[in-house]
Order: sequence, then C-alpha cells, then structure tokens
Amino acid sequence: MADKSALVISAHAADFVWRCGGAIALHAEKGYDVTVVCLSFGERGESAKLWKHEGMTMDKVKDARRAESEKAAKALGVHDLIEFDLGDYPLHLTQDDKFRLVDVIRKVQPSFMLSHSQYDPYNTDHMYATQVALECRMIAQAWGHNPGEKVLGAPQLYLFEPHQTEQMGWKPDTFLDITPVWEKKRAAIECMEGQEHLWDYYTRVAENRANHFMRNSGGQGGGRKAKYAEGFQSIFPRTVDEL
Amino acid sequence: MADKSALVISAHAADFVWRCGGAIALHAEKGYDVTVVCLSFGERGESAKLWKHEGMTMDKVKDARRAESEKAAKALGVHDLIEFDLGDYPLHLTQDDKFRLVDVIRKVQPSFMLSHSQYDPYNTDHMYATQVALECRMIAQAWGHNPGEKVLGAPQLYLFEPHQTEQMGWKPDTFLDITPVWEKKRAAIECMEGQEHLWDYYTRVAENRANHFMRNSGGQGGGRKAKYAEGFQSIFPRTVDEL
Amino acid sequence: MADKSALVISAHAADFVWRCGGAIALHAEKGYDVTVVCLSFGERGESAKLWKHEGMTMDKVKDARRAESEKAAKALGVHDLIEFDLGDYPLHLTQDDKFRLVDVIRKVQPSFMLSHSQYDPYNTDHMYATQVALECRMIAQAWGHNPGEKVLGAPQLYLFEPHQTEQMGWKPDTFLDITPVWEKKRAAIECMEGQEHLWDYYTRVAENRANHFMRNSGGQGGGRKAKYAEGFQSIFPRTVDEL
Amino acid sequence: MADKSALVISAHAADFVWRCGGAIALHAEKGYDVTVVCLSFGERGESAKLWKHEGMTMDKVKDARRAESEKAAKALGVHDLIEFDLGDYPLHLTQDDKFRLVDVIRKVQPSFMLSHSQYDPYNTDHMYATQVALECRMIAQAWGHNPGEKVLGAPQLYLFEPHQTEQMGWKPDTFLDITPVWEKKRAAIECMEGQEHLWDYYTRVAENRANHFMRNSGGQGGGRKAKYAEGFQSIFPRTVDEL
Amino acid sequence: MADKSALVISAHAADFVWRCGGAIALHAEKGYDVTVVCLSFGERGESAKLWKHEGMTMDKVKDARRAESEKAAKALGVHDLIEFDLGDYPLHLTQDDKFRLVDVIRKVQPSFMLSHSQYDPYNTDHMYATQVALECRMIAQAWGHNPGEKVLGAPQLYLFEPHQTEQMGWKPDTFLDITPVWEKKRAAIECMEGQEHLWDYYTRVAENRANHFMRNSGGQGGGRKAKYAEGFQSIFPRTVDEL
Amino acid sequence: MADKSALVISAHAADFVWRCGGAIALHAEKGYDVTVVCLSFGERGESAKLWKHEGMTMDKVKDARRAESEKAAKALGVHDLIEFDLGDYPLHLTQDDKFRLVDVIRKVQPSFMLSHSQYDPYNTDHMYATQVALECRMIAQAWGHNPGEKVLGAPQLYLFEPHQTEQMGWKPDTFLDITPVWEKKRAAIECMEGQEHLWDYYTRVAENRANHFMRNSGGQGGGRKAKYAEGFQSIFPRTVDEL
Repeated sequence: MADKSALVISAHAADFVWRCGGAIALHAEKGYDVTVVCLSFGERGESAKLWKHEGMTMDKVKDARRAESEKAAKALGVHDLIEFDLGDYPLHLTQDDKFRLVDVIRKVQPSFMLSHSQYDPYNTDHMYATQVALECRMIAQAWGHNPGEKVLGAPQLYLFEPHQTEQMGWKPDTFLDITPVWEKKRAAIECMEGQEHLWDYYTRVAENRANHFMRNSGGQGGGRKAKYAEGFQSIFPRTVDEL
Repeated sequence: MADKSALVISAHAADFVWRCGGAIALHAEKGYDVTVVCLSFGERGESAKLWKHEGMTMDKVKDARRAESEKAAKALGVHDLIEFDLGDYPLHLTQDDKFRLVDVIRKVQPSFMLSHSQYDPYNTDHMYATQVALECRMIAQAWGHNPGEKVLGAPQLYLFEPHQTEQMGWKPDTFLDITPVWEKKRAAIECMEGQEHLWDYYTRVAENRANHFMRNSGGQGGGRKAKYAEGFQSIFPRTVDEL
Repeated sequence: MADKSALVISAHAADFVWRCGGAIALHAEKGYDVTVVCLSFGERGESAKLWKHEGMTMDKVKDARRAESEKAAKALGVHDLIEFDLGDYPLHLTQDDKFRLVDVIRKVQPSFMLSHSQYDPYNTDHMYATQVALECRMIAQAWGHNPGEKVLGAPQLYLFEPHQTEQMGWKPDTFLDITPVWEKKRAAIECMEGQEHLWDYYTRVAENRANHFMRNSGGQGGGRKAKYAEGFQSIFPRTVDEL
Repeated sequence: MADKSALVISAHAADFVWRCGGAIALHAEKGYDVTVVCLSFGERGESAKLWKHEGMTMDKVKDARRAESEKAAKALGVHDLIEFDLGDYPLHLTQDDKFRLVDVIRKVQPSFMLSHSQYDPYNTDHMYATQVALECRMIAQAWGHNPGEKVLGAPQLYLFEPHQTEQMGWKPDTFLDITPVWEKKRAAIECMEGQEHLWDYYTRVAENRANHFMRNSGGQGGGRKAKYAEGFQSIFPRTVDEL
Repeated sequence: MADKSALVISAHAADFVWRCGGAIALHAEKGYDVTVVCLSFGERGESAKLWKHEGMTMDKVKDARRAESEKAAKALGVHDLIEFDLGDYPLHLTQDDKFRLVDVIRKVQPSFMLSHSQYDPYNTDHMYATQVALECRMIAQAWGHNPGEKVLGAPQLYLFEPHQTEQMGWKPDTFLDITPVWEKKRAAIECMEGQEHLWDYYTRVAENRANHFMRNSGGQGGGRKAKYAEGFQSIFPRTVDEL
Repeated sequence: MADKSALVISAHAADFVWRCGGAIALHAEKGYDVTVVCLSFGERGESAKLWKHEGMTMDKVKDARRAESEKAAKALGVHDLIEFDLGDYPLHLTQDDKFRLVDVIRKVQPSFMLSHSQYDPYNTDHMYATQVALECRMIAQAWGHNPGEKVLGAPQLYLFEPHQTEQMGWKPDTFLDITPVWEKKRAAIECMEGQEHLWDYYTRVAENRANHFMRNSGGQGGGRKAKYAEGFQSIFPRTVDEL
C-alpha cells in the first residue's frame, strides 16, 4: 500500500472525470493510491443520450456507465474504483450505506478528500453527496464507531469544480497545475461517450484555469506558465509552518 | 539582502505585534527580511493610557509609541520598521502617500503581505488600511508606474487576526505554528506598556489558536501539538503542484 | 390544454393566495393553465382560529381549509388545484410522494414554477417545500425516470414573497404588476376566513410592492404607475436575446 | 414551578457545559427553571479518552458520560436534565423523537431556548440539532398538534458558542456577564474528566469574551468590567419599548 | 440637560421622519434629548416636486426643505435639529465636516445612534452617511482627538429602515412599538408636502412592522398587540445581564 | 438619434471588448446607439507588453491603446467612444469628472448601463468604476442637478463578466446569445494586440457561456443551441407584466 492516499466521493459515475481527473492522475503519478467512490452510476439523470436508444433498460444503462467509468479510471491511474450503485435522481443513503462509506474512508485513510460544491440548485444529488461526505468524515473520526479500528485524522475536504460555478456559490482557493497529466485527463474524458458535448467544454475549463494559475503565481510580473489546471475550494483551514 | 521577504502593513504602531508578531519572528528566523510599515502611531486613537497623563502632547505620545514599536520590532527580528506617521482616527493617504507605499512594496518585493480584516465597524482605519494595501499592490504591479523599476509579482495578502473576529467577518483559512518563537512574541507584547490589559488577552488568543492548529492537523486521530499559533485569512487563491 | 402553463408548489393550503395570487390570476387571464399543488392543508400549524372552536377535529379543520382553498382557487382562475394532504408541522414527503409530485410536474410541463423562500427559521415546512421543489424538478428532467415520458425542460423557479422577508434572506429580483387582477386576488384573500388579520396586511404588501414597481421602472423620471404588485426571487439565470 | 424558564438543546452530553454553562447558572440564580435536553451522550464521537481504556463498552461510556453530565448539571443548578439517548455520530431523530422533544418544549414553556450554530462542517450533529430545535419549536406552536395543550409562544433561539467560531459562520450579537457564577461554571467544566484538555481552553474563551463585554459596554470611555462572559447569536428579532 | 440622549445622522432632510420618526417621538416622551443631524437638505436629489415649479432656485428649495424638516422635528419632539447643509447627490464630507460631526457626537454623548443601511445601490449618499457615522463614532472615542474633552463611550449604531429593504441587504433585529406616538409620527410625515406619495407608503410600513412586532413577541400563542412599529438593525453586539 | 440606447462604463480601454463586446454588437445591430466611456486607457496597468518595448513613453502607450480601442469600437458598431483619459492604477474621479460622466449619462439616456463587478481585490480600479457608475446614475436622476435638463429614468445596471469570476463574487443572472455577432466580437478582440494571450481565453469563455445559455433555456429537455454567449449580473430588480 502506498504511503499516501486520496479519496474522491462522486455522486454519479462521470463526475470524478470532469471535475478532478487531473488531480487524480497527478497524485497517482506522485505515488498516491487514489480511491474513487461513485455513489451511483447517474443512470437515471445523467445518461440522456443512452436513454434515447430504442429498447434501453436500466441495467443496460448502468452497464454502459460502469464500463465508461472503469475505462476512465484506468486512464487516470485510479487505484480503486468503488461503485456503490445507490441510485440517482434522487440519490439517497441509508445509515448502512453511510457506514459502508465510513468503512471505505477508514480503510483508505486519505491525506485529502474530494467532493462536490455545497450548493447546487440544478442537481440536489451533488450537494447531498457533499453533506454525506462531511457526515461520514465525522463518523470515521469517532473512537466509538467500530472501536478498535484506526480512526480518521483530519483530512482536507476539497470541493471540486461544479458546472456553472457562480450559480453554486463555489469559490476556488487552490489551483493545481495538471499540465503534466493532461493527456491522461483528456483520454479519460473521451471515455465518456454519452456526454461528448462536454469534452471540449471541460478542456476549455482546464485551459482557462491555467490562466488563473499563472495569474495567481505571478501575474504580469511573470507567473509560472501552465497549460491546464484545476480549481478547488477548501472546507477546512490549513496548518502550516511557513506562510 | 535575503532571498525571501515579507511585508506587514499596519494601520497603527502596535497592530503588527498583537496580530502577526509570531509570523514575523518565525519568518525572520527562517531567513526572511520582514519589513513593517506603520501607517500611523495610533497616537490619537490607540493611546488612551498615555493621554490620561498630565501635560501630555501629541509629540510625546508619538515618541512613546515610536519607542515601544521600535523595541517590539527589535524583539521580533524585524528587518526594517518604517513609520509613515500619517495620522490616525482617521487614517488617510494622499496619492503621494500611496506612491510612497508602492515604493516600499517594490523595494521589498515581498513573498507575502499581511494586513487587516476587510471589515471593521469599530475601527474604520483598519479596513481602510487593507483597502490601501490592495490598491498599492495593484499599482506596484503596473508596468507603467515608474517604468523601468522591477514590477511586483502576485504575493498573497494575508489578513491577520482582528479584535472580535466574528464582528469583522474574518475567517482564518491558515493556522501558523508559532511555538518556536513564542518567547519573542511575548517579549514584543510586553513592550506595549500602554496596553497592558491586552497582554494576557493575546496570549490566550495564541493558546486557543494552537488548539485549532492541532484540531485541523489531525484532531482526535492525533493532530500535531502546538502551544501557540496565529490565524490568517487569504485573499487570493494558492497555486500548487500537490493538494 | 393551454399552450402555456405554470405550477405553484405551496406547503400549506393558503400560501398560494397571499404570496402569488396575483401572478396566478394574471397568468390565467393571459391563457396559462395554472396548477396549484398544496402539499398539506396547514391543518395543524396554520389553523389556530379553527382549533379554538369547541369540538374541533382534524377532519373538520381539513374540510374547512379545503373549502377555503377551493373557493380561493376558483376566484383566481386556477386550472387545477391538487391537494396532496401530506400533513404539516412538520411536512414530510416520502420518495413516493416526491414521485407523485414529479408526475404532476411532467404532466403540467410548466413554463415556470413558484415556491417558498429557501430559508425560514419560523417555518421549516416552507424551506422544506422549496428543497423538494428543486429535487423534484431535477427528477422530472431525468430521462431515466419513467423512460418514455416527456422530460421536463428548464423552467425558472420563482420564490414568492415570504412573511417577514428580511428574516428569510429573500431578495426580489422581479416585480410583477398585478393591478389588472387585484380584485380577484382580494376576493381570494377574503376566502381565508381563518386568517382575517392578514387580509389587510397583504393588501398593504401589494400596495407597497407597487411603489417598488414604479421606482424600478423609472423612478423620479416617471416610472410606470402600478397600484398593486408582487415580488419574486429567481433561482436560475434568464436566457435572453436582448438586455 | 418557577415563573420563568429556559431550555437548552444539546447534541451531546457535554455541550451545555462549555457553551452555556454560565448562562444556565446565572439564570438559575435569577429564579429560572433551566431544563437541559441532551439528545445523545456523545458516546461514540466525543469520548475518545474513554475509548482508549482497555475493555471499554458502549454502556460503560454512556454511564460515564451520564455521570459526568449529571454532576455538571448539579453544579450549574440545572432544574431538569433529560437524556434522550438517541445515539451520536450521526445523531438522528425520528418523528416520534421530535414529538418527544416538542412535549418537553411545551412543558417547559421556555422564555428562551439555546442550541448550536447553524453550520458546522466538523460536526454535522451540531447543525442537525439546531435544525431540529427550529422544527420542534414550530411544531410546539401549532394549535393542531395535540389540541388542548398550551401552545408555545415565540421564545428567542440563541445559538451558543461553537468551537472554532469563524469556521461556523457564527457571529455573537449578545454578550452575557457570567462573572457572578464563574466558579460554578468552572466546577461544571471540571466534571468533564474525559476532556481535560478543554478546561483551560474554555476558561480562556470566557476571559476573552469578558473583554468583548467591556468593549461593547463602553470601551475606552469606560466600559463595565467583567471577568468572564459568554456570547450568543440570536435567530429572531427582539421586540422592545426602548432602544 | 436630560440624563439620556440619542443622535440621528440623516443624509437628507426628510430621512429621519420616515425611517425613525417613531423612535424619536417615543424616546423624547421617555425623557431623552434627541438630536437630529441632517447632513444635507436633499435639495438636489430628493425634491423633485419642488423643482417642477416654475422659477425654482437652489435657495428656495433649501428653504422649503428646511421649513418642512423644522416643522416635522417639532412634531416629533426633537431636542435639537442641526442642518449641516453639505450638499447632496453626491453628499461629501471634508475632514473638517467630519470633525464638526464629531463635536456634535461628543456634545450629545448619545446612548444610541441611528443612521442608514450599509448598502444602497439606489442612493450612494445613504451608505456614505453610515460610513461617516462609523468613522466619526470612532474619532469621538479617541482620547487624542481634542484632548481634555469627554470621549465617547460605545453607543449602539442602529440602522433604520431603508426604502426597498431587501435590495439593501438590511435585516432588522429589533422591533420598536411606536403605537403610543403614532399620531406624532403621522403629523411629522404630513409636514413633508413634497413627498405626499410616501405618506401612506410609510403608514403601511408601520402597520406591517406592527404585525412583525406581535409575531416575534408571541405569535399564535398570543403576542403583544401593536398597531405601529419600526424596525432597526444593530451593528454592534449587546451586553446584558439576562438573556 | 436612435430610439434606444445603451451606455458602457469601462475602467480601462480594453474592458468593453472582452466583457461585453457581444452585447454591444448585438444591440447595435438591433438599432441601439451604444456609447462607450473609457475612464482611462489602462496605460499604466494594462499595457505590460507595450512597456517592454525600448523607449516607450506614456503618450505612446496612450496612443497605442486609443488606436486599438477605436478600431475595436468600430468593429463592434459602437455609436460613440468617449475617452475620459483620467489615468489608471489608480483610477480617480474628481467631482468635476463625475459631473462630466453625468452629462454623458443624461445625454445618452440609456435603456441600460454596463459596468464592472462590485468587488475585485486584484484590480481596485474595476470596483471603483462601478461605485462611480452607481453614484453618477443617482446624480443623473436628481431634478436639482442642472435643473431643466432631462433627468435619468431607472435603467438597469448590468455588471459584465470580470476575470476570475468566482474571486469577485460575481454571479450572472442573465445570459445573452451573441452567436449572430460573434465574428464582430472576435474581430474586436483581435484589435487588442497588446493582450494576445487573452484572445483565446475570452473565446473559450464565450463558448462555455453558450453551454450555460443552452442549459438554462431547456437543458436535457432540449435547450436552445447557442455557440457564443455573454453573462451579466443585474443590480436592480426587473419590472414585468408576465413571468
């Protein structure tokens, strides 16, 4: 097992690709074991293109979404892709589902976690996933939950980039240069055949975030060039020895 | 000149001691040249104790405040303490005063800057100082301001801890462990003879921020112990190669 | 069936009258089919006057509230009044209840929807209703929910005016002139016999909102006179061909 | 029964001590009957020290927490300590649990209520408790809930001080001088043997809040000295006859 | 001189009437000396009706506005009406103007102060007046400003009700029952001949605020009836001995 | 003169191109007279590339910026481009400068206005320009300012898209389809030779905003296709006869 690890909690199968595929690939290259939990396949709400096919069934949609996400995960170097298959639109977790997620969190012992924005009026599954991520992070820290297991420390929860950021009240405080792994992210994006209209959209997002990376690392005085970047919002404060 | 440098912009003479004395001493020990600009002595508004003495005059108050802040700066290892002496309650900068501050910023070329919270209904000088810090940071970045000079890059502006944090809408996102330099900060605090009632107040602040440091670096799972800490709020996003 | 339609989702039986009775009547006159869903009768929490009668029972309260709202709906020209009768204080929807609401949304295919403010510390049923409205709007858009049915487009969700607007963080961005239908709204208001103390209250609200209508349509330079208006807050951005 | 009463709704057994022990003791001395509801013992999530003992069981932890909170309640002069024992991390209330809480609220008929901050990403139990407090306050006001019982008026809900206030978006608008009862609060704090690391932390909080008390009651012009204070945020507006 | 006093800082001549006329009259009856400072007459921006008369001049407008406000002040029992006559649209204060306001503050030594909302995109004079009120309150507290004078304590600054409250981000936390002095407020309102269209508007505001007063003082359980009320937002926390 | 008109208030010469070039071209095609005021050339702060040339002077930079913006304005069909030439970094307007802007506003009598976001910590000129736009809009409405002139009505003030939207707290509520005029906007963009690195950046912005346009006009149910769009935030509420 790697010394360092990270955990992505994604409401639907494709979210981890668009929103933090670069962070996954980059940290995998750095030796992190990155685990991705997809709480659902997005089979009902995020598979419009598939449903337009004649004779489509729920199982076929799930299979297609599963295949796509496995392929994308492989392209990104995901260590472990876990499909919770809990259903979407709406997504709902019972207490047992939550405890299953806590088990994953404790097993992974992530250095940091990634999930959705805290507000999303277009997609209540997204904000629900983040609420669950916070709740399960808290449970994983409890000494009295499955006593004897190793409790969780205090990993950062980063919120990855939602669609239509401004409507979600999402404000990135961290830009990550993903230039070295861009080819992997694009390859993973192209696994999402059902959402081809978003391939270029998220490529443009990455290019524009690279402009923000450069501007915040130096601006007119000469920031560091980056061709592709991702943005993240932190929930918790950092602890440092140097500003 | 040191490779690394930092710049504190303080509305009144004592602010840099209470609010970021630890950050100053710590970075000085790390080899940063830390410059402190006091825009005023706080001679009118923050010297109540002195004014209660018989026969006090403005010059005497300024001299006392200057002496105190020089002593404190020395205790902290400040590289350069610059008194702008612009008057307080209210503080006001003309365009020339701002350009003088720009000169300092360009000369220092700080890795990061420190100033007040963006809102303070108790003390409008404080929020005005931050507004000026942002404005002068922008001017210092302009290639057309004194063409030929080295323009400023994009240093972070950290907002240090105000009094009554919640009333100011100040939310720290960064906790700095100042345990190694605490004795220096306490020594600097004790230079502020006119505000003795705040010595223990800010010692308690530092102790409680250390609890926050520990909690955010690991919590019940075993955070890193710190005895004294300071908190800061960042204005700009960070650019990183690893989350 | 009309070409255009609208859907009101009201936590309790009377809310649609006070908060958007004018919008209902106006759009009915314009040829919209306006459907109103009352999730409950407000029988427990908003029928104080009825409960003060000797020998009152839950069924009698519900009957009285039903009669009042049917009468009011008729006065306003409501196309379809649907009583979900799910209970109030607290209001709660099971997944099946939500799917029932999704069925209504899909059947109506509203041009726009109306519901409560997103925050209401006095009345948690109100904010819960809006949360459900957003969730069911999302489900109604899912191609995988009852595949084969016509999915929902992207109708605006307007939040109608709550009581004590400022406490709810509600900020109207749209004022609607309801002068032409005021008599209908007042007639509907007077159907609410159990809440007579609010008749004049909401008349005054309408008169003062008319002042806001005038001010925002021209102000001192000569805004358009309106005698009665209603205010609404939009959740989603508009898409236009002219500003 | 006393003329005046207050009700504290605490997610875990110890919260009422750290966060409003002074308010409890002070109002008890003033003749209020103060009831404290602990929704859980905090047995899973807030008893790390106990769980580190060999052979610990859930029942033993609960017993220890119960004993501690009873002792603390006695020290503070709590009129009635009610342990709901609903489990923590996560805390969850069924509708019946909520109705049980409504029964308490109606029985107590509090002049004011106290609970947690509305946001807490570290501890979702805390914000859930406040959400429940608002919901049950509303139910208790409903004439149709258990008709015939005395309905609740409109007591203020004060939010007591959370840990890491700024992260919770908590802003105190009321400071209470608890100097006269400090010894009682400290005694209650010392009953919490499992959390000894917080004894001095919350003592420092009380001392610094006293500085805020003084500053807001007069400041440099001569505020009222207080040695210990607590801060509270109000959810609802006040109604007064004099500003 | 009265034991208690209050100070209103009004951007234009009429603001004090609409927004806090009730508070003025009520406190005058309670024995407060209420001083009103009008920073301008509102002669340019709030006198549309006068300017539509043939042959109007700036002096004539000012005279008319002065006469109206003096009459209104008398109706309300204002102790001292001070016209700063600084011009409006835009309002601007030099440092000397601010010091003149500081002199008034110190002379009055108000128990509380009243001014505008902190945001007003329709009327930048309003938000500027509040900014000045905070700045001058701070200067008045400075021991080094005109040493020897009695410095100001820490009076609350209440923000009175703006027009279109929700657009201003204004949220009242205090409702004052002005029923006993309503006739005086209405009489003062009727002195504002140039703005007759607002007489009934602000009467309706007062009636609706009375509903809020009742609701927050008891609601369905039987709040205290009030026929007219005013709302205020506090800038600073309160210090109390009982919640 | 056209029946309809619009007014853009731009802090620096190039802002109107990137941020609302599409809106300008589109409304010009619809018969609006669009006036653009550039308060400065951005000669000091936004001309880095020019300043890197040997022997550059302030006049040469201004000339280059003027030439570029005139060319861009022509490409967009701007009716009137007015260069105020007030200097930048920092931008400052005297009262006379403001009155000059008021004269323009009154002459144009715009149906709507366009300016910057209300917050911008990177560029204080931007937020200052918006503050001035609000102030001058207010003055232009005053009957007592240059009595006899036609006063301004109540035009919307739209805030156009800033760089790094999320850092500015800017939230678009209106998306405008600019597909029909995209070639004109791109041509105008290419006039900005000094900022070639932004050509593709803002092209990507327009493409991604078109995705938002489609999503908000229908989403999965079939929104209207747009290839290029711009987003705007409204300061004031709209007044409508139909929702």
